[in-house]
Amino acid sequence: MSKEITSREQDYSQWYNDLVLKGGLADYSAVRGCMVIKPYGFALWENMRDVLDKMFKDTGHQNAYFPLFIPKSLFEAEEKNAEGFAKECAVVTHYRLKNDTANPGKLMVDPEAKLEEELVVRPTSEAIIWNTYKGWIQSYRDLPILVNQWANVVRWEMRTRLFLRTAEFLWQEGHTAHATREEAIAETQKMLEVYADFAENWMALPVIRGVKSANERFAGAEDTYCIEALMQDGKALQAGTSHFLGQNFAKAFDVKFSDRENKLEYVWATSWGVSTRLIGALVMAHSDDSGLVLPPRIAPLQVVIVPIYKGDEQKAKIDERVLPLIQELKAAGISVKYDDSDNTRPGWKFAEYEMKGVPVRIAIGARDLENNVAEVARRDTKEKASVSLDGIASHIKTLLNDIQEQIYNKAKAFRDANITPVNTWDEFVSVLDNKSGFVSAHWDGTGETEEKIKELTKATIRCIPLDNPQEAGTCILSGKPSTQRVLFARAY
Amino acid sequence: MSKEITSREQDYSQWYNDLVLKGGLADYSAVRGCMVIKPYGFALWENMRDVLDKMFKDTGHQNAYFPLFIPKSLFEAEEKNAEGFAKECAVVTHYRLKNDTANPGKLMVDPEAKLEEELVVRPTSEAIIWNTYKGWIQSYRDLPILVNQWANVVRWEMRTRLFLRTAEFLWQEGHTAHATREEAIAETQKMLEVYADFAENWMALPVIRGVKSANERFAGAEDTYCIEALMQDGKALQAGTSHFLGQNFAKAFDVKFSDRENKLEYVWATSWGVSTRLIGALVMAHSDDSGLVLPPRIAPLQVVIVPIYKGDEQKAKIDERVLPLIQELKAAGISVKYDDSDNTRPGWKFAEYEMKGVPVRIAIGARDLENNVAEVARRDTKEKASVSLDGIASHIKTLLNDIQEQIYNKAKAFRDANITPVNTWDEFVSVLDNKSGFVSAHWDGTGETEEKIKELTKATIRCIPLDNPQEAGTCILSGKPSTQRVLFARAY
Repeated sequence: MSKEITSREQDYSQWYNDLVLKGGLADYSAVRGCMVIKPYGFALWENMRDVLDKMFKDTGHQNAYFPLFIPKSLFEAEEKNAEGFAKECAVVTHYRLKNDTANPGKLMVDPEAKLEEELVVRPTSEAIIWNTYKGWIQSYRDLPILVNQWANVVRWEMRTRLFLRTAEFLWQEGHTAHATREEAIAETQKMLEVYADFAENWMALPVIRGVKSANERFAGAEDTYCIEALMQDGKALQAGTSHFLGQNFAKAFDVKFSDRENKLEYVWATSWGVSTRLIGALVMAHSDDSGLVLPPRIAPLQVVIVPIYKGDEQKAKIDERVLPLIQELKAAGISVKYDDSDNTRPGWKFAEYEMKGVPVRIAIGARDLENNVAEVARRDTKEKASVSLDGIASHIKTLLNDIQEQIYNKAKAFRDANITPVNTWDEFVSVLDNKSGFVSAHWDGTGETEEKIKELTKATIRCIPLDNPQEAGTCILSGKPSTQRVLFARAY
Repeated sequence: MSKEITSREQDYSQWYNDLVLKGGLADYSAVRGCMVIKPYGFALWENMRDVLDKMFKDTGHQNAYFPLFIPKSLFEAEEKNAEGFAKECAVVTHYRLKNDTANPGKLMVDPEAKLEEELVVRPTSEAIIWNTYKGWIQSYRDLPILVNQWANVVRWEMRTRLFLRTAEFLWQEGHTAHATREEAIAETQKMLEVYADFAENWMALPVIRGVKSANERFAGAEDTYCIEALMQDGKALQAGTSHFLGQNFAKAFDVKFSDRENKLEYVWATSWGVSTRLIGALVMAHSDDSGLVLPPRIAPLQVVIVPIYKGDEQKAKIDERVLPLIQELKAAGISVKYDDSDNTRPGWKFAEYEMKGVPVRIAIGARDLENNVAEVARRDTKEKASVSLDGIASHIKTLLNDIQEQIYNKAKAFRDANITPVNTWDEFVSVLDNKSGFVSAHWDGTGETEEKIKELTKATIRCIPLDNPQEAGTCILSGKPSTQRVLFARAY
């Protein structure tokens, strides 16, 4: 009846691909590692983008747009950042094609159109933006600059996965400039909180707020704050990062301002971003073997109504009752579709909307009408109920809130049950292999030990949680003293 | 007092650059031919984008996203399209940088990371999209596909101008697929009308709807519809195009569908786009020697309120009256800023908002308060009036509508006065050189004559207006018979 989906138990990875492809979110493309975001997936992204964009504007940020290309000499100016991204850079070397005389009808790169300086396709925009800020900042009166950009970026990844890791992806990158270290750190933390708020209250995705270890920091940052989420297979996923960049980029691009005492100082910086990767997180956190499960607050479609009828007369009667209901739902700000197409059967439609994760399905048949009821099915729990048509709109409104809450609670219960404290190496390995999830363990604080643990187990330090309790202990690997536990996990 | 702007009479081109730069719309960047769109300019683009996006959705279109890169072999598949854009293509040839051992701290393109097949940075997306549609279309039930994409594109232009012609620009590109020629043509025309509606009713920019001559068609199209606008210097500007692509791309990418009779047919296509170039058109159509003039319906800020006071006591009294007014304006959907910053004088602020083209300025001083009035200045005509504070919000609302209408009427009167019919070659040249604007003249219909006229005068056929009256005449250049006049102009 419906398109077949591999079950999670059978093959989690294939289940994920099935959902993304058959749920209509994305498609593979002819370009290695690049995907096509299909209309349904893009509508989801638009909803997420619009909510985030409002949050950014409500916290005083404005959008702008900077060039796609970064001249190599600018790209390499902040050395750590450049080094971190060099291996993943797509590079434009020529600006013209010409007819390939040896192959009529074909084109070739024109060797005479070689650029004097190669252009890097932005993997992130600190370099081009800080080179621009140099011209915008003279005095403390020009600060802060609170700018965000919605853009595509390219990172030439060797192993790609739809949404989770693609060569090109869509994201937003905030780039702010401040007069003091304190203000920049406050901004970094504020934007982390915006991301956590968005993840939890809109995506229904519980996250742990934390700080990265030095090894896992963004290249060029002094501190990387992050939100970490847990997927259903027990692997962690970094859902957003906010970086305190210190004066690294100001120094690389010589961006100084005169302060109130007319003294020249380097500017302090932050950057922060989330990407279409969040869609991958959403799919893997909530969905089931029947298809996508989408939180109502960001679902492209919240309610679908399917009429069940024989003949035009029954259909007309159902229409008569449904059309005012649609108006009522729309007036309440609920997105609704009346799927009365007659080329597919109701059963097919049920499976299709289940696959697409539409939170609420209303089915109305001729007998329902007689009884003044409709069948209301919720996608998350698959529960069905017969609901009186009187006041059904307000019932739906409440139900959507319930579903949002229930999806979050379920994900949170799962996440909480999968944070396992361990005290020995054997326990650590055993939990990773048999239970997975986050493992809370003591670590001696060195990059060396962290690296060794990663080599041995593929687990990385996901974060040092904010407000982490201080607690004396010994490192699970080195046995050296430790002052706090950190969260390890295998991750996407 | 204010930043200096070159006058139009002195140097029209410099006037334009001054407005874009000093009005805070855009900035030059370190990348040849690429610009930075500054927050104020981007807010304007966001307003334009949001209106257009709603228009597209209201006409049944959905957004999606396709890869930035197009493999060369796909790019060259539709030969005319490829030929038309080949000379402007930025090409990615490598996917990695590495340390330049000869220059410590510098990077170089890694010669070992050469792509097997070069990737073209999209100058337009027909190729990658039709290669994707091939997988989406099997039967007539899959049609129509009505998809739009908001994206950046790159065309390596040799001479660039901020907004008007940049190597990278932002745009939207609609790409639709249909079962019949008639339906595709109807879509092409419908979207032209959407563009004309947007230009006239939102941008206050009167446009002529028309069809391009064969020489001026989009590469790969069977017909290109366009809207043409007139700038204050008498040059024309193509403000939007909508292409009927026939079956050209379906044939190049082998996209067939089985129709109701189960017969395989090639799919019919359209594409249509407008870009950040529209911002250039907006600036050049309406602005004056004091700065930008922006139509209220798309202005990032519609009303600015400037208090004029001495001392905290006067300020407090003004605040008391202004804050409820702000609430009232906001409740009416009007964007308003209260500029009570104390580090610049009112005169400076007046000049600044004039420069930025804020449609309405309200100034309130202590004496105004005593008289229960405020000074209301409109940007377009620079008229000032003393307006009673009672009911001022509704006055402002009406005023914004008046300004919108007045800006349009002024541009339309100018445009209409600058469509000059001529019947001889001497007249034609004389009008182009002395009056400029659109010249309505007979043409023999051949590409040869058109090319010759362009060589001799730099004027091109802007369009053959829709519903053009048929009228016998003789071609201004060749003297051969002609059945209708067409519009010539020098153009951006």
